[in-house]
Amino acid sequence: MTGARTGQVAVIFVSQRTADDAAGYAEAAAAMDALAARQPGYRGVASTRDPPGFGITVSYWADEASAIAWRNHPDHVRIRNAGRDRWYRSYEVIVAAVTRDYSWRKG
Amino acid sequence: MTGARTGQVAVIFVSQRTADDAAGYAEAAAAMDALAARQPGYRGVASTRDPPGFGITVSYWADEASAIAWRNHPDHVRIRNAGRDRWYRSYEVIVAAVTRDYSWRKG
Repeated sequence: MTGARTGQVAVIFVSQRTADDAAGYAEAAAAMDALAARQPGYRGVASTRDPPGFGITVSYWADEASAIAWRNHPDHVRIRNAGRDRWYRSYEVIVAAVTRDYSWRKG
Repeated sequence: MTGARTGQVAVIFVSQRTADDAAGYAEAAAAMDALAARQPGYRGVASTRDPPGFGITVSYWADEASAIAWRNHPDHVRIRNAGRDRWYRSYEVIVAAVTRDYSWRKG
């Protein structure tokens, strides 16, 4: 499929986990995934992390306004602060406007 | 650091590996990483994959022209075709213009 995400806003979150509090992190991550999916303008997510704890999550939003609203959601802000305290060694956030996209699947 | 990537082009590659040919895949991936890093306009990469083989790679480029030149590089085209044959079950490519970015590191 071509162009399914063109015009959306991609929020790329690149992070290195600490080795701490796997259970607390997993619970918070699941709660945030579920909460994000209920926000206006949410258009999906892809997320992966390797065993040493280096992860990339890309969430997609209808527009800048919905991406910013999610960034400022009080529960998200609270969890982000917990993440800085306990779960992340470092992270980057890259916000980008999708200009083209395509997908391929083995036939 | 804020804004280090603003204005760059992010190419997000989301893929599901097959279980086949781990050695051939690793060799090709390393060769492509090294070749990409020598292309004009290359600005870095972040890549991760979980044990079931779901991976996300984000490469950064100075502009659309350098991202497209890398897409069309003959060695890259050849490896992409091998990837469809042997290494990937499915993939998505999302090209996006970075509008803002920031990073955080534990002090």
